[in-house]
Amino acid sequence: MNYKMIRYIICMILMAESAFMVLPLLVSLFYGENGVLMPFVWSILAAFCTAMLFGLKKPKYDLVFARESYIAVAAGWILVSLFGAMPFYLSGAIPSFIDCIFETVSGFTTTGATILESVESLPKGILFWRAFTHWIGGMGIIMFLLMLTQFSEGHSLYIMRAEVPGPTVGKITPKASSNAHILYGIYTALTLIEAVLLVFGGMPVFDAVTTAMSTAGTGGFSVRDAGIAAYNSAYVEWVVAIFMLAFGINFNLYYLMLLRRFKIVFKSEELRVFIAIVAVSTVIMGINATEYYGDFGVAIRKAFFQTGAIISTTGFGGVEFMNWPMLCHSVILVLLFTGACAGSTAGGIKISRIIMTFKMLRKESRRLAHPHEVTTIKFEGKFVDKETRSFIMVYMSAFFVILAVSSISIMIMGHDYETAFSAVLSCLNNVGPALGNVGHSGVYTLFSGAEKLFLSLLMLTGRLEIFPMLILFMPTTWKKH
Amino acid sequence: MNYKMIRYIICMILMAESAFMVLPLLVSLFYGENGVLMPFVWSILAAFCTAMLFGLKKPKYDLVFARESYIAVAAGWILVSLFGAMPFYLSGAIPSFIDCIFETVSGFTTTGATILESVESLPKGILFWRAFTHWIGGMGIIMFLLMLTQFSEGHSLYIMRAEVPGPTVGKITPKASSNAHILYGIYTALTLIEAVLLVFGGMPVFDAVTTAMSTAGTGGFSVRDAGIAAYNSAYVEWVVAIFMLAFGINFNLYYLMLLRRFKIVFKSEELRVFIAIVAVSTVIMGINATEYYGDFGVAIRKAFFQTGAIISTTGFGGVEFMNWPMLCHSVILVLLFTGACAGSTAGGIKISRIIMTFKMLRKESRRLAHPHEVTTIKFEGKFVDKETRSFIMVYMSAFFVILAVSSISIMIMGHDYETAFSAVLSCLNNVGPALGNVGHSGVYTLFSGAEKLFLSLLMLTGRLEIFPMLILFMPTTWKKH
Repeated sequence: MNYKMIRYIICMILMAESAFMVLPLLVSLFYGENGVLMPFVWSILAAFCTAMLFGLKKPKYDLVFARESYIAVAAGWILVSLFGAMPFYLSGAIPSFIDCIFETVSGFTTTGATILESVESLPKGILFWRAFTHWIGGMGIIMFLLMLTQFSEGHSLYIMRAEVPGPTVGKITPKASSNAHILYGIYTALTLIEAVLLVFGGMPVFDAVTTAMSTAGTGGFSVRDAGIAAYNSAYVEWVVAIFMLAFGINFNLYYLMLLRRFKIVFKSEELRVFIAIVAVSTVIMGINATEYYGDFGVAIRKAFFQTGAIISTTGFGGVEFMNWPMLCHSVILVLLFTGACAGSTAGGIKISRIIMTFKMLRKESRRLAHPHEVTTIKFEGKFVDKETRSFIMVYMSAFFVILAVSSISIMIMGHDYETAFSAVLSCLNNVGPALGNVGHSGVYTLFSGAEKLFLSLLMLTGRLEIFPMLILFMPTTWKKH
Repeated sequence: MNYKMIRYIICMILMAESAFMVLPLLVSLFYGENGVLMPFVWSILAAFCTAMLFGLKKPKYDLVFARESYIAVAAGWILVSLFGAMPFYLSGAIPSFIDCIFETVSGFTTTGATILESVESLPKGILFWRAFTHWIGGMGIIMFLLMLTQFSEGHSLYIMRAEVPGPTVGKITPKASSNAHILYGIYTALTLIEAVLLVFGGMPVFDAVTTAMSTAGTGGFSVRDAGIAAYNSAYVEWVVAIFMLAFGINFNLYYLMLLRRFKIVFKSEELRVFIAIVAVSTVIMGINATEYYGDFGVAIRKAFFQTGAIISTTGFGGVEFMNWPMLCHSVILVLLFTGACAGSTAGGIKISRIIMTFKMLRKESRRLAHPHEVTTIKFEGKFVDKETRSFIMVYMSAFFVILAVSSISIMIMGHDYETAFSAVLSCLNNVGPALGNVGHSGVYTLFSGAEKLFLSLLMLTGRLEIFPMLILFMPTTWKKH
């Protein structure tokens, strides 16, 4: 194991974080919030000095294999959260350090689950940093997905093939670094467009920028206690809803659109199923919630917003849906499972994995019934090889085993079924809102410190597609060979 | 598709059922219950005549492939339940025909979920038939497992290899029919021993025989409203608990014991994990429930009984556990998932599949971390091939997808999370008791007719290891080729 390179990679990540933290410091300066200036300075210095101390020199032997990369990513994400929690703690915005960790992990994993009952009294610099963690998290996910693509060129690493089926950027442009630039460009451009559209709708610039950053990372932190509902504007709701869905679409499709390959985009199986699920959920919830709002138009808008919020795993929107009829809760529960498209900043199981799972169940049933028939599976117009199929099944099993074991663990701690199950599912899929007691209060304050750390681990596990965290905590990883 | 042979096989099954129904008729005659004589006679005649009418002549072309067998088994199990429901309906013991179907499916699938709030007032013939369906169901499962073994000698059908890993009877004795005789012999002998031991404990003969039959099929129907607690005897509880566990062990191990191959038995990985789970659950629940009973000895006995009842998927025992502390509920929820050993009459995911799933998660994590390393999985001392591994993962995914979709469907109908989830899990795993509102009442009467039929389908799906039911209801199965 190349420990030196792991250390070096983590230090580079911390270095980047210290640079990122300069931005909220500037925001604080701009708004003249003297109380939070020093907390940011200390946090920046802490991350910077740690990075300098342990990562000054690049190791000579700089070859890393899959294992080292996974460990570096998993450990890096944890450390970034610890340093990222410092401004919240030092400024006194969040008094408990465990709560700070929960909030920061929730930010970087773009989950959006919060322990803050009220945010409007917080300094603007802190609110900016909170939303910015979502945006940085979204970039981190894009980087992580690219890393997976790189490995998938080699052997036996087929997450990306499962993750981003169809045309991969890797096939269109030659180098990974240029891929990253293209994807970051798309990501930044979409964020800017949303912010501008929101400002046009009358939203204050600060609110528009933070909301756009939260949407981009499909996170869900808001600078208002009531979330998007605080702006009381149908226009804002439509814009945010559409952008939540936009950030849930495979980014490769945007690149293909830039290349004017619209045919491939419209043929995308995953996109079609995604649109179908959104349409059906909106209609069901809209009709069902009409009674509550007394107006079909309003109900459809609210239903569309909530569908977008949950399926994109953003989770904006306050707790309004807790008052909707029971059927809506069931639809939300289904959407909590699915997540959006692979290759986006959204979390969740992902539509492509769900399509593949159903195709495989059909195939295996056929195979049992007709043992001599050769059956294959096509997805996005391509045959899916055995390794990829097998890996998706392992992924699904791992997901459900973790979901079951974690829900039961939280129940053992004394929470009711609905709360435990929906909170675990929401954290594991990086959505944010949950049902039960979490749904009623809208915040995760009802959990104990240990439970919050456990839920934070679940957020990281879900965000990193399960296996990197398993590798990090597996004893055999650390055995000498 | 060989429709004629499917029809013929189903008719043979119905013929056997009509013969089986003679026994409860004799019981009714013995107890002089004139009211239920004719219902049994009509039921026997209906099954017999239907079988004669459609299956008098064996088709000339009698070759069946896997597909035909699955369809015949799935359809056969459904039809047997319909005819088996007749005595309950005609005698007026259960007024609603849907309830009769639910009760009979629950009987044949050895689930033991009931809609009867009180059974003690029912005629003995009816009570005997109710317990007897469990015993017949247990035999049916043994036959079904043997059928799977037969197919697994050929191609691509590796359920049995996954299902009964380790030494299979097929390797010891040459013919399937003699396998069946040996397994039926073990099954009958164990049932008789239990009945005799219960009579020694002072239980009335009728109660002892029906209880033994219920235990053998790991069903759980009782002839007393309070279940086993009605006998108020520690001896009876110990005997029933030990036999519930005994029927949850792979029957091949008994055969190996008869052959004095004790070494292989004690080396069985699945048996060891099974014993470990039972021991740990008993201790946790025993300590936790001591407060409730005020006596550690009593608490341990009750905990052992409840552990045996749930893990063997028998489910005897009334609703006493609903008053136990929360931690016990969580343990019960875990046991509701696992089920007992493969190759037994128990339902559930099965310990062997759970061991394999964890081994595969570890292996896949290792494989991602060390892509060039060759990793293999051993189970019961043998290497597990790729096809088997892949099939187990498909099975697990199918299980959890069905569990999630069904729970949400029941929730949509207006039931709370705990009730919906635990009832679906209990039916799918053929356990019987559930938590939530079902737990409080101990019966499934709170569900509507449509919901009861849906739960009946789930019981059949779980009992037949999922895929035969999928094949039966898959449109492509019925397409002309």
